[in-house]
Amino acid sequence: MKLWGGRFSQELDPDAWQLNASIQFDQRLARQDVRGSQAWAEALKKAGLLSVEEHRQIFKGLEAIDSEFKEQRFAFKDSDEDIHTAVERRLQEMIGHAAGKLHTGRSRNDQVTTDLRLWLLDHLPGLDESLRLLQSALIERAEADLDVVMPGYTHLQRAQPILLSHWWLSHFWPLARDRQRLEDLTRRAASLPLGAGALAGTPFPIDRHALAETMGFERAAENSIDAVADRDFVAEFLFCAALTGVHLSKLAEGIILFSSAEFGYLELPDAYATGSSLMPQKKNPDIFELTRGKAGTLLGYLSGFMAVLKSLPSAYDKDLQEDKIPLFTAFDSLSLLLPVLAKALRGLTIHAEKMRANISAEMLATDLADYLVDKGIPFREAHELVGMLVGTVLERGKALDELSLEEFQETIPQVDADVYQVFDAQHSVSRRSAFGGTAPEAVREQIRLAKERMEVID
Amino acid sequence: MKLWGGRFSQELDPDAWQLNASIQFDQRLARQDVRGSQAWAEALKKAGLLSVEEHRQIFKGLEAIDSEFKEQRFAFKDSDEDIHTAVERRLQEMIGHAAGKLHTGRSRNDQVTTDLRLWLLDHLPGLDESLRLLQSALIERAEADLDVVMPGYTHLQRAQPILLSHWWLSHFWPLARDRQRLEDLTRRAASLPLGAGALAGTPFPIDRHALAETMGFERAAENSIDAVADRDFVAEFLFCAALTGVHLSKLAEGIILFSSAEFGYLELPDAYATGSSLMPQKKNPDIFELTRGKAGTLLGYLSGFMAVLKSLPSAYDKDLQEDKIPLFTAFDSLSLLLPVLAKALRGLTIHAEKMRANISAEMLATDLADYLVDKGIPFREAHELVGMLVGTVLERGKALDELSLEEFQETIPQVDADVYQVFDAQHSVSRRSAFGGTAPEAVREQIRLAKERMEVID
Amino acid sequence: MKLWGGRFSQELDPDAWQLNASIQFDQRLARQDVRGSQAWAEALKKAGLLSVEEHRQIFKGLEAIDSEFKEQRFAFKDSDEDIHTAVERRLQEMIGHAAGKLHTGRSRNDQVTTDLRLWLLDHLPGLDESLRLLQSALIERAEADLDVVMPGYTHLQRAQPILLSHWWLSHFWPLARDRQRLEDLTRRAASLPLGAGALAGTPFPIDRHALAETMGFERAAENSIDAVADRDFVAEFLFCAALTGVHLSKLAEGIILFSSAEFGYLELPDAYATGSSLMPQKKNPDIFELTRGKAGTLLGYLSGFMAVLKSLPSAYDKDLQEDKIPLFTAFDSLSLLLPVLAKALRGLTIHAEKMRANISAEMLATDLADYLVDKGIPFREAHELVGMLVGTVLERGKALDELSLEEFQETIPQVDADVYQVFDAQHSVSRRSAFGGTAPEAVREQIRLAKERMEVID
Amino acid sequence: MKLWGGRFSQELDPDAWQLNASIQFDQRLARQDVRGSQAWAEALKKAGLLSVEEHRQIFKGLEAIDSEFKEQRFAFKDSDEDIHTAVERRLQEMIGHAAGKLHTGRSRNDQVTTDLRLWLLDHLPGLDESLRLLQSALIERAEADLDVVMPGYTHLQRAQPILLSHWWLSHFWPLARDRQRLEDLTRRAASLPLGAGALAGTPFPIDRHALAETMGFERAAENSIDAVADRDFVAEFLFCAALTGVHLSKLAEGIILFSSAEFGYLELPDAYATGSSLMPQKKNPDIFELTRGKAGTLLGYLSGFMAVLKSLPSAYDKDLQEDKIPLFTAFDSLSLLLPVLAKALRGLTIHAEKMRANISAEMLATDLADYLVDKGIPFREAHELVGMLVGTVLERGKALDELSLEEFQETIPQVDADVYQVFDAQHSVSRRSAFGGTAPEAVREQIRLAKERMEVID
Repeated sequence: MKLWGGRFSQELDPDAWQLNASIQFDQRLARQDVRGSQAWAEALKKAGLLSVEEHRQIFKGLEAIDSEFKEQRFAFKDSDEDIHTAVERRLQEMIGHAAGKLHTGRSRNDQVTTDLRLWLLDHLPGLDESLRLLQSALIERAEADLDVVMPGYTHLQRAQPILLSHWWLSHFWPLARDRQRLEDLTRRAASLPLGAGALAGTPFPIDRHALAETMGFERAAENSIDAVADRDFVAEFLFCAALTGVHLSKLAEGIILFSSAEFGYLELPDAYATGSSLMPQKKNPDIFELTRGKAGTLLGYLSGFMAVLKSLPSAYDKDLQEDKIPLFTAFDSLSLLLPVLAKALRGLTIHAEKMRANISAEMLATDLADYLVDKGIPFREAHELVGMLVGTVLERGKALDELSLEEFQETIPQVDADVYQVFDAQHSVSRRSAFGGTAPEAVREQIRLAKERMEVID
Repeated sequence: MKLWGGRFSQELDPDAWQLNASIQFDQRLARQDVRGSQAWAEALKKAGLLSVEEHRQIFKGLEAIDSEFKEQRFAFKDSDEDIHTAVERRLQEMIGHAAGKLHTGRSRNDQVTTDLRLWLLDHLPGLDESLRLLQSALIERAEADLDVVMPGYTHLQRAQPILLSHWWLSHFWPLARDRQRLEDLTRRAASLPLGAGALAGTPFPIDRHALAETMGFERAAENSIDAVADRDFVAEFLFCAALTGVHLSKLAEGIILFSSAEFGYLELPDAYATGSSLMPQKKNPDIFELTRGKAGTLLGYLSGFMAVLKSLPSAYDKDLQEDKIPLFTAFDSLSLLLPVLAKALRGLTIHAEKMRANISAEMLATDLADYLVDKGIPFREAHELVGMLVGTVLERGKALDELSLEEFQETIPQVDADVYQVFDAQHSVSRRSAFGGTAPEAVREQIRLAKERMEVID
Repeated sequence: MKLWGGRFSQELDPDAWQLNASIQFDQRLARQDVRGSQAWAEALKKAGLLSVEEHRQIFKGLEAIDSEFKEQRFAFKDSDEDIHTAVERRLQEMIGHAAGKLHTGRSRNDQVTTDLRLWLLDHLPGLDESLRLLQSALIERAEADLDVVMPGYTHLQRAQPILLSHWWLSHFWPLARDRQRLEDLTRRAASLPLGAGALAGTPFPIDRHALAETMGFERAAENSIDAVADRDFVAEFLFCAALTGVHLSKLAEGIILFSSAEFGYLELPDAYATGSSLMPQKKNPDIFELTRGKAGTLLGYLSGFMAVLKSLPSAYDKDLQEDKIPLFTAFDSLSLLLPVLAKALRGLTIHAEKMRANISAEMLATDLADYLVDKGIPFREAHELVGMLVGTVLERGKALDELSLEEFQETIPQVDADVYQVFDAQHSVSRRSAFGGTAPEAVREQIRLAKERMEVID
Repeated sequence: MKLWGGRFSQELDPDAWQLNASIQFDQRLARQDVRGSQAWAEALKKAGLLSVEEHRQIFKGLEAIDSEFKEQRFAFKDSDEDIHTAVERRLQEMIGHAAGKLHTGRSRNDQVTTDLRLWLLDHLPGLDESLRLLQSALIERAEADLDVVMPGYTHLQRAQPILLSHWWLSHFWPLARDRQRLEDLTRRAASLPLGAGALAGTPFPIDRHALAETMGFERAAENSIDAVADRDFVAEFLFCAALTGVHLSKLAEGIILFSSAEFGYLELPDAYATGSSLMPQKKNPDIFELTRGKAGTLLGYLSGFMAVLKSLPSAYDKDLQEDKIPLFTAFDSLSLLLPVLAKALRGLTIHAEKMRANISAEMLATDLADYLVDKGIPFREAHELVGMLVGTVLERGKALDELSLEEFQETIPQVDADVYQVFDAQHSVSRRSAFGGTAPEAVREQIRLAKERMEVID
């Protein structure tokens, strides 16, 4: 069955059919399609286009179809072009005549985007929950690792000592932004296209505001032409997904680096690592590499779909059918990744002593400069002096804290005997107690804020 | 001058310098850099790191530098690596010694992203205003063209009659969403990194909340590592810009089509069209083609920059320097395009009679089906019957409304003499009066809503 | 079964397994995996690592497995991590002990990319054939439509008369370049990684040159580290596919435009058009819209996968597993599209009279300028004069060829009575007979060249 | 001056002018434009459209203009819309009347793409030379570091010992493919559009084959419509550039990792490293980070431009003007990066002892399995046994080579006293002597091949 064909004298070529049909992937919208059709039947009844009895039949029929989908008993036929056709075909089989009234004043153009919006609105909370789960795991780690001091890196060069907790939390906040972005998107996705017809609106007295409310939308779309063509919500979701992918790739990169033998900071739990078919000793962070890789793939869905949208002429064009696969695939990718990451993080073994051991005295050069600032030397000059000192120790093959007081004073007369306390990493960390800094008290405050934020997105 | 080098025994290779230097493009941040430095100096004074006199000197010096930038008198030197270096270098020339204290507790890592956020926050209102301007032009057109009926298209095939006003407004709402997205972005961009230092926070008693408030930010960034690395606001801006580009490309595609000889619906004003070096008769819609083309280019900035971000290790990495050119260029593109489009739309000549003439009787086939629905035939059956009728008229080389009543009744006995009123396009349009539809009253209501929305983004 | 695990004390978490496993998509490499394993077994035998008997068993076992795949009898198990594991597991079931020797000196790292290259080399000829098929259809059209004169467009504005044949052929040559690009890629893809081991090469005396020859590769990869990591051939294929997509989208855009009512140049065969669920009269070019849309999607696979590759550290990383889905999907997309397009083009109805009717006199303005050039007026001046004349006729609401000789001479005294032949479109077309032009003789020559080229790619 | 306008009654709006004008960036085509015009003038003379004297004047005038460009004396005017206009305007100033004949039978449509192709053909050899330079540097390193054994990584986990030389060469071959791709592109770029006119060809008897030969093209474009629209060469160049970017990003990632303190394998020369404005001790690999970042940016140019091309209607559209900035910028990026990288590589200090020290006994687990294979144990079983052994040593906190013979034999009775030689990394490396492997003799052979290849691209 297809929902058109009266004017056609020839059947669609089988290859063209295969190209055109969307049932392989849009069947995922089955239950949303049923739900949308039930709401539409209700609206038709209110508008006097369905009798009470017809409405009852349609409603019951759709309910039965919904059960078939739920219980995976629905039998698709080769001739079902798309999910809308399949549902209407089945309804006809079930209730006959009255089924033919359901499509009154409606078009697949407004129907399909209604289904897709419904699907997204149905599924966004689950994705948000998965993000929240990973945030929880990060907070747990931050709480567990509060006394671990590690080298902080910029340019992948040792920069300054930080708390490992602070590092974990640096991956929390991007996810908070991601959740906020999804929330913003939700608002925009919750605009009901149904009732826009093919493009011009519906000629029957449908109350689209009531329809929107019934279906859980925030409002009815304001312009019927825009309503059938607008896929901003898909593009925006793909952007959100891709940016989350970028954030996860950053976390993954960190875990991959830190679990290399050279860093040696972390060890993956066996349940989240894989081996080699050739090298018996290998323990590979595949999970995190796939996370990193999928960030690239997600990015491709975004740029591909935006290229699909570019310069389409007005209203509905079939190109828009390319919206579903990227949306579903991006959603599935993140839904699969996030819980695995949360569990893997929880199972990590931390080698705190290795982290601590890697904090070389040079990493406290900024603290030394700050020490000079306290002695009244302008920072720029202090920075230059310490830089020269670093040059000197490199030449002499010494560490900064191995210089004698005299050696310090050679270059910088202002240095006193109290200089050596500068080289205590814990001390350095503790000093950075301004809001957002790495001092334990600031990190504790940050954890408190993070917990608060986790409960409220905005 | 460069802000580092104490530990280095060799000068940077000149080619490496050229690759590394960012002054060619980050000088655009000059005034933001000065403003940020003034706020930082204030914070240092409050924290007891600058005396009142030192602060006064620095503040005055920066003010003088700001004037130099404003009046384009600032003399860059070849040795200025970036805008931060240039400003500090100039300050040193002006006030000497005290200038060296300005960089206390600060790093270029927190400074540069603060500058860039400030720049964006400074410039977003202007972009919003440009979007609003185009929205105004669309509303003006919608008001002017309220009585123009035209063919509405789906799949670029004539579908149903619509009002031209309704078509103009279909381009209004995407821009409303764009403005809302920029508003959402603004909220996220207004998070102050300053005080994050290189990555670990600042060791001096800086009140970052107060600093944020002074500088017009909504809040201080919660994690110093994230603060120096977070370029979500750039990616999100590039997404917003690219999606706006997509919307403009759709409008442009419409104008290009409608101003082709074959459609003949619109004529461009001479002031917004261009000619050919070879073909004297040509009048080309270059403005709109460039709009369409730039949508592709904008998309490239988005996908390029997200690829830059992907899998960067933690905190600041120099790769992030690739953020500025796409941000500035995307901003400039839209800032240039939007006002030109607004002006060009206002100047269009509308060929209403050509539009009306193109509404063939077949475009009212849906209305005929609806007519049958009113006669009690289920829509699906009505659709099939009308489809067959269309097949018949195509064969006979007639138009639908040229069929005699008998011919109608051959296929559909339920048809009465009142069927001919169905083929009045104005009547068809008027029937689509449900919210969001193309009926004049619905469009008038839509214009009212649009005006309301234009003033309040959300 | 998995091919590792000796050192692991815990099973992989089920979610992590699902994320990690590739069997859902890499089973498509089944027959290549078998073939590669047979060649490897042969190489091991030659190297003295398999006895003749062991080799016989392995070879026969693999042959039986190949039959199972061919006849779709192979039973995958939930525990098959990937196709390599599945094959080795099955081999073990079949021949026991000896199966354990097959993986000697080999790693999944060199195995998987060998399989993928083999798959591509196996399938490229089919894709080339599909491209050739579309080229044939274009040539057929060009031959059939040799006497159809139509308006040629630039900027979608009527520019100069051309032959429809010439337009068809303008879509032939991009496909010729596409085929040439695939040929170039084939050369690069035909580099054998097998024998690279995990990354360091194989410690056994394998003759990789002989192995390459046996397997139909042009050469053995020169560096084992590069061999396991190199996915240039995937990126290059995705680029070729995306650019072919762009070419098809251009053709599709043309067909969509030309089959709109406004152009009215073409009519789609019913077997390659679709209808509307709401509007009974619609005949939509879905096939061509999907072609256009898929060009965007293909572009996404390219940019996504290149982002996957960006900044991977050396040798094999699991991120590379993201190579298969885009490669397979891009291949399938084009394989589905191309034959449908070829068939649809063959079935088009051409409305030659409509095309001819749309050649307005203004389109011959360049010919008029050329006529003036023949009269000794420099082209730039001629262009200006004709431009003024066009302005005049627009004002007077006349066509260029409706001007009286006196009217011509008002603006351009050099015009003679012979000017009117300029406005014969056929004459205009015939004059463009230089190589590559639209004159019938030039187009005939072009068809000859095209046929020649179709047989030889380079 | 603009090259059109006769039919226009109003000047272009200044903002529209700014949007439309391309002179800011296409002036880079100045000398190609002059060269193309000289060749065209020659062709016009041969075709009898210019007298010998006119041709002489034009040729001389263009020569003088070329000198002005060469010596940067050419004075652009605000009214120069593009480089073609600027050149013709200047020619008119210089030689008057005759200049107006130069544009006979030519359009900016065929002119601009001819200029751009010429530019690319002029500049590709320089880019190839830069790639060759980096290849040289890699070979030099490979020769210098032939006796350095280092850990080879997969999944960033220590996998097997390799020669550092082998690692350097793993970055050589991707560049060989890049150069081959540029060579293939050159062939396709060398197709001359000139003579295609606006889209229909030229009506004058121009010998396009001769013109192509004169201008150094391989052939004349076969179809005038395709000729003015074809930007495959730009897309293909952007792909080549992006893939080279990916290759450089991989090298950069390696250098960044290896020059981190944790790896400690390499030290950057001071002339190719930068410092921090805050942290005096920092020595940052900015050059390599920018290389990595620019790979993302290059990718954006590719995907952006392909989106520009997607679904353009036939022949020339103004969207194509978006081709120049990405082409020039991508070219400049690589031209800047490559020589810096070559120099930086040459200046690296290698810490061979650190590399050697990081080869733990576990990295020889595969060699141990291979040893068992030699003892007749099937590889799969050997792999499993060694895996268990690794598990054991991990538990006991020992290294593999610290096990006593008895401990070995507990798990694997077949082990003999000769097992300990397995743990000699040099021995392991030497065994991988098959073609493409890491054994010194294989690497020496590889260097020989690389040198050979460097001289011949294909």
